[in-house]
Amino acid sequence: MLVNCVAYIEGRKLADIPKEEISEYLKRPDCFVWVALKDPEPAELEEMRQEFGLHELAVEDARHGHQRPKIDEYGDSLFVVLQTLEFKGGELTSGELHVFVGPNYILSVRVRTERGFTDVRARTEREPQLLRHGAAYVLYALMDAAVDRYFPVLDTLETELEAIEEQIFARNAARSNIEGLYSLKQKLMTLKHAVDPLMEAVGKLYGGRVPRICAGMGEYFRDIFDHLQRLHASIEGIRDMQTTAIQVNLGMISLNETEVTKKLAGWAAIIAVPTMVAGIYGMNFKHMPELDWLWGYPVSIAIMAAIDLWLYFQFKKIKWL
Amino acid sequence: MLVNCVAYIEGRKLADIPKEEISEYLKRPDCFVWVALKDPEPAELEEMRQEFGLHELAVEDARHGHQRPKIDEYGDSLFVVLQTLEFKGGELTSGELHVFVGPNYILSVRVRTERGFTDVRARTEREPQLLRHGAAYVLYALMDAAVDRYFPVLDTLETELEAIEEQIFARNAARSNIEGLYSLKQKLMTLKHAVDPLMEAVGKLYGGRVPRICAGMGEYFRDIFDHLQRLHASIEGIRDMQTTAIQVNLGMISLNETEVTKKLAGWAAIIAVPTMVAGIYGMNFKHMPELDWLWGYPVSIAIMAAIDLWLYFQFKKIKWL
Amino acid sequence: MLVNCVAYIEGRKLADIPKEEISEYLKRPDCFVWVALKDPEPAELEEMRQEFGLHELAVEDARHGHQRPKIDEYGDSLFVVLQTLEFKGGELTSGELHVFVGPNYILSVRVRTERGFTDVRARTEREPQLLRHGAAYVLYALMDAAVDRYFPVLDTLETELEAIEEQIFARNAARSNIEGLYSLKQKLMTLKHAVDPLMEAVGKLYGGRVPRICAGMGEYFRDIFDHLQRLHASIEGIRDMQTTAIQVNLGMISLNETEVTKKLAGWAAIIAVPTMVAGIYGMNFKHMPELDWLWGYPVSIAIMAAIDLWLYFQFKKIKWL
Amino acid sequence: MLVNCVAYIEGRKLADIPKEEISEYLKRPDCFVWVALKDPEPAELEEMRQEFGLHELAVEDARHGHQRPKIDEYGDSLFVVLQTLEFKGGELTSGELHVFVGPNYILSVRVRTERGFTDVRARTEREPQLLRHGAAYVLYALMDAAVDRYFPVLDTLETELEAIEEQIFARNAARSNIEGLYSLKQKLMTLKHAVDPLMEAVGKLYGGRVPRICAGMGEYFRDIFDHLQRLHASIEGIRDMQTTAIQVNLGMISLNETEVTKKLAGWAAIIAVPTMVAGIYGMNFKHMPELDWLWGYPVSIAIMAAIDLWLYFQFKKIKWL
Amino acid sequence: MLVNCVAYIEGRKLADIPKEEISEYLKRPDCFVWVALKDPEPAELEEMRQEFGLHELAVEDARHGHQRPKIDEYGDSLFVVLQTLEFKGGELTSGELHVFVGPNYILSVRVRTERGFTDVRARTEREPQLLRHGAAYVLYALMDAAVDRYFPVLDTLETELEAIEEQIFARNAARSNIEGLYSLKQKLMTLKHAVDPLMEAVGKLYGGRVPRICAGMGEYFRDIFDHLQRLHASIEGIRDMQTTAIQVNLGMISLNETEVTKKLAGWAAIIAVPTMVAGIYGMNFKHMPELDWLWGYPVSIAIMAAIDLWLYFQFKKIKWL
Repeated sequence: MLVNCVAYIEGRKLADIPKEEISEYLKRPDCFVWVALKDPEPAELEEMRQEFGLHELAVEDARHGHQRPKIDEYGDSLFVVLQTLEFKGGELTSGELHVFVGPNYILSVRVRTERGFTDVRARTEREPQLLRHGAAYVLYALMDAAVDRYFPVLDTLETELEAIEEQIFARNAARSNIEGLYSLKQKLMTLKHAVDPLMEAVGKLYGGRVPRICAGMGEYFRDIFDHLQRLHASIEGIRDMQTTAIQVNLGMISLNETEVTKKLAGWAAIIAVPTMVAGIYGMNFKHMPELDWLWGYPVSIAIMAAIDLWLYFQFKKIKWL
Repeated sequence: MLVNCVAYIEGRKLADIPKEEISEYLKRPDCFVWVALKDPEPAELEEMRQEFGLHELAVEDARHGHQRPKIDEYGDSLFVVLQTLEFKGGELTSGELHVFVGPNYILSVRVRTERGFTDVRARTEREPQLLRHGAAYVLYALMDAAVDRYFPVLDTLETELEAIEEQIFARNAARSNIEGLYSLKQKLMTLKHAVDPLMEAVGKLYGGRVPRICAGMGEYFRDIFDHLQRLHASIEGIRDMQTTAIQVNLGMISLNETEVTKKLAGWAAIIAVPTMVAGIYGMNFKHMPELDWLWGYPVSIAIMAAIDLWLYFQFKKIKWL
Repeated sequence: MLVNCVAYIEGRKLADIPKEEISEYLKRPDCFVWVALKDPEPAELEEMRQEFGLHELAVEDARHGHQRPKIDEYGDSLFVVLQTLEFKGGELTSGELHVFVGPNYILSVRVRTERGFTDVRARTEREPQLLRHGAAYVLYALMDAAVDRYFPVLDTLETELEAIEEQIFARNAARSNIEGLYSLKQKLMTLKHAVDPLMEAVGKLYGGRVPRICAGMGEYFRDIFDHLQRLHASIEGIRDMQTTAIQVNLGMISLNETEVTKKLAGWAAIIAVPTMVAGIYGMNFKHMPELDWLWGYPVSIAIMAAIDLWLYFQFKKIKWL
Repeated sequence: MLVNCVAYIEGRKLADIPKEEISEYLKRPDCFVWVALKDPEPAELEEMRQEFGLHELAVEDARHGHQRPKIDEYGDSLFVVLQTLEFKGGELTSGELHVFVGPNYILSVRVRTERGFTDVRARTEREPQLLRHGAAYVLYALMDAAVDRYFPVLDTLETELEAIEEQIFARNAARSNIEGLYSLKQKLMTLKHAVDPLMEAVGKLYGGRVPRICAGMGEYFRDIFDHLQRLHASIEGIRDMQTTAIQVNLGMISLNETEVTKKLAGWAAIIAVPTMVAGIYGMNFKHMPELDWLWGYPVSIAIMAAIDLWLYFQFKKIKWL
Repeated sequence: MLVNCVAYIEGRKLADIPKEEISEYLKRPDCFVWVALKDPEPAELEEMRQEFGLHELAVEDARHGHQRPKIDEYGDSLFVVLQTLEFKGGELTSGELHVFVGPNYILSVRVRTERGFTDVRARTEREPQLLRHGAAYVLYALMDAAVDRYFPVLDTLETELEAIEEQIFARNAARSNIEGLYSLKQKLMTLKHAVDPLMEAVGKLYGGRVPRICAGMGEYFRDIFDHLQRLHASIEGIRDMQTTAIQVNLGMISLNETEVTKKLAGWAAIIAVPTMVAGIYGMNFKHMPELDWLWGYPVSIAIMAAIDLWLYFQFKKIKWL
């Protein structure tokens, strides 16, 4: 689906143009074309390939989708893949943003992604002096927006971890903690798979040998790299704590269970002693002098109670109850 | 076993040729020979070595089999080893594809591999303009086909993991989960051993110093590298989740067991109390006033029942039952 | 909030200057301006940006805060981020120190940090021959002070670990140990996130290609790098021991619990035997010769006692009690 | 002990020579000397040092023994250390092979190693055209033989792992599995310590800057490197599976134990119920109407049996028995 | 404390000189000064700094102590830090050796270290031809001696591990094993912190760009590097086995405990059955025909015994006892 198709001159919007005329506009000097698609049909992609003269392998990747984040150079042009992450009903789903970058065009393709990037276009159009930098600046603006959207996801995960951490040492450390930690790990992996390869790729857009199209924008791309590194470090931190949290939580639950078993065993001992004494006085021997005593019964009960009280306090003292 | 032996000129099939004449055709300018073998006898390999003038060490590797994926340069020619993976009755078995690549020939040797690569030949023959690129393009087509066959394997493993994950937190987290996770790990290792060394090797076919035979095909081999990286990342992801899944699953099973023991211990306490009381009234003391009471028996039963009811609700409340 | 705003000439303090005149002083040859801010408002930062001509992206980072430690080059100037760590009521909180370094100025911005760096200024002003080195030396002095403040934090964590280690093998290895180790890990991660990225960044200030502003100060920055490496190694050491400590501690607690259960089960056996014997002699068979014996009762008691004593010593011997 | 001491000319054996004349033969152009020692005395090593003019530090290493695998360059000559692995009565013991390589000599010293390398000499002497390559080829032949001897060791360990894996999920997962896995790990470490450092060292004998003595033999040493890489990958694979196997096995054993305990607890409940009922009817109350009933006894027994049967099937249903 | 202060000419001892004259001797051509201090006061270090013209930062490091092993270059001179390890009453304590190396001097400072390095001086003085190499050779001799002293420490740790390994699978795998393994880990970390950073540092003294002072001594420093690598590999090996040993040992202890519990539960069942039967015949029903039988009592006892014997052998068969 075509979202936008606009031509710019000198950083200022010229006009919305029909997509069939893209190749015309690309031939004009100083003209810059920025097209945005959403979940395109194969036919739409094919049309774009011809209008922009895109590389076959790049278009094939866009058609297949489910790419890792990456930045591929094809001669003078770049093919950039980013992952987009969105919460849908508590689930973290991932989509993709493909950006084809040429000397005087940007084609951005949004796949399986609810939220668009029209705010980026709006903000960029308000700053013609920056838009004049052309494709590289638009690429930066798109990447910056996409990366900035990872931070709320990270915050959500951090909050989830903290919520679970508060539960871990509570007496009834629930089995739901483990489920929460496991699902946290899954979301974390999704975020990690979006961030880490991208970080690696962006690292090639500044310092060292930079694609010609991005020359002079090093400080901007380093800024994105910085954000990605921050995300990366936080993800690793959460991962590390979460591993320990699972281990500790499993240990605490198992501990709680065995502790209950221990207590029940303690009570069993306390019940078993009078049972034994009663059993003895239930024996049918002819000659059991105690049985004839007047105070035999209350004394025996008293003895049972005494032993049990003693046991009870002993067990309390050594923490068996 | 010889599968195919074809000579091409200008990207078009010339003829099926007898294998004894291979060396003749290799001498003709512009002629390109593509031979496919399947589980060859040592004698067949030796014949090929002489026809193509292959390097002794490469042929020895092909003879021994059970190689790691790799790409070895011998002067102007390449020796490429890939692993093929096939499910046979639920088991993941691995075979090999050896490719000898020279300036004007391809010799592909398929070992312990059911499914052939004739579809690659068919597709390639349909595109003479690409086949004209010669050996490098055929190598690319073969590698691309072999690597693309890893994806269904990966999908199967992902599906297996997901099926097990759904079981983990079910109350009767079965011991079969652990078996499933262990066997998943074994299959994963098999896939990993096919992918990782190949990724490393393919990385040398683009950028930097490239074997002369592959010059100008960089974008194609980078595409294969990309696929391998995607496989690699997914494998690592599954491995990571699977490690946690084993840990969590063992913990959950053990928890289920101790929980049952705890419950049984709780019931034991509930049974022990009336037993004790009954024991007391079973004592044979002469002077036990309660025994003579008219309501002694029903009252004692009532007391037992009352204690047990109280225990039952207490235990329920503190989750001991 | 403005803390200080001082101009220096030839390493000696010239005067406290109003912040509006900073740009004036920067134009004078040989004049060096050192400004310190604390938790600045966006407006203050904007004012500084204009006075010093700071790079937009650097100022934006300072405005957002919550940066990783890093050293960014912007043309001739540097933007340095360090984390500050302070204990507030047992909690380890982290703040930041942002330093903008230019050829003839230092702007240091302290955020969420109680303790200031006026001691650094005081010591630096006492050594005019060093201050004459200009911005790089002041940067070194600030970084050195910030890094030196990590060591007491590290010492505290080491002490915590040692305190817990002494508890691990005590019989009543408390569950509080695990809580302590978990919270130790959290603090350790905070320290690690302050140290590791900084180490990486400082490594670029000596050897190899050094920012022009730091040229000739290599030995000083290597000294900071050394300190950071020492911190890093100690952190890794504590982390490693702590991981083992958690594992061992969980094991020891679980062991203590099962040991108690084992002992209670042993005692249960000791109580069960007389109960069984008493039960037998409580049977109501008409013909039970023992019941009529004169010594039947004491002998049966003696037998019970004998069996129990034997059991008791057996269990003691094989460590079941 | 001297094993062999032979001079070669043009790849053909000239004569067994007395060791005192080695230095004489070394002076002849085109003459190549190959000496093999076994567990030499310090005096023998000293003699060789003088005959061959070996470097003091290399000889000292050979004298001390217990070196890591390595390849040291001393000017024009190489000092190579390999580990040899042999099974002696189920135990994996390691010895060493030291090879001193000069432009026209090989001195191989076998230490704590049963099996010699005379087969290498025999095969080499049969191929004079290869032996003519001189020292580098002999070094290759020795290293190739030594490395090939690691594969049966690896196979043994793989077989051991597979044998244990089959046991893991058997109901009576024996404690012997753990012992087996632990001892497997020890053997694996021994193999790893033989393979990994050697791989690193051999990597320097081809590509990049190669010791002059090995020039032109790159494809041969790469072949050894390939073998070592295959060993390395297999070792890592076994290590990984073995770690999981230990974890899973410990879990399964512990599970089996708690399962038995659970079952016994279940049976205890089944026995406790009739005991309680019997206790109740064993009470000595005067007024217990049931006691006088004609069918009291059989009915009470029937009730006990009924409860127990119900319990039994309940427990079976919820897998408690 | 001053230990030695000697001047050498041409590798031969000239005289013990007073420390005030060091700077005099340093000015003489061909004269070499070697000073050894032990636990020096700050004043002594200051004096040395002036006599030798040492760099302020290096002296400060020596004054503070507790450095990581490292080799710092200051212009033409080196500052080397090594850790010394000594067993004091079973505890492994670490001290330091600081070596300041200049073109014609060595100042070695031993801190918290019992055993001195006078044997190094003695041996070096016996070999004037080597001592003539000057500072680099003395540095090598000191480092070699310090590194060689790590091996007995490693041997002790290996012996400790082996002693514990023999205990792991013994039936009464004591809790002391865990304590032993934990304390082993602590000592191992101490050794590791001495070895690993030093290895990294020594790697810069041969190959690549070497400090001018060490030029031509590459083979000697590579030898030290080799020793350190050997130590490193052994430490990693012990660490790996020890991690597994802790895991396995915890598992075995827990297994032993649960096994005992299982056995006791088995015995409880064996005792419970006669108790139940006896309870039944202890009921006071009027009409219990068995009670009147002549053989009722012995038959009931026989039945109890029979059931228990059957249970006993059943339990033995399925390994529950």
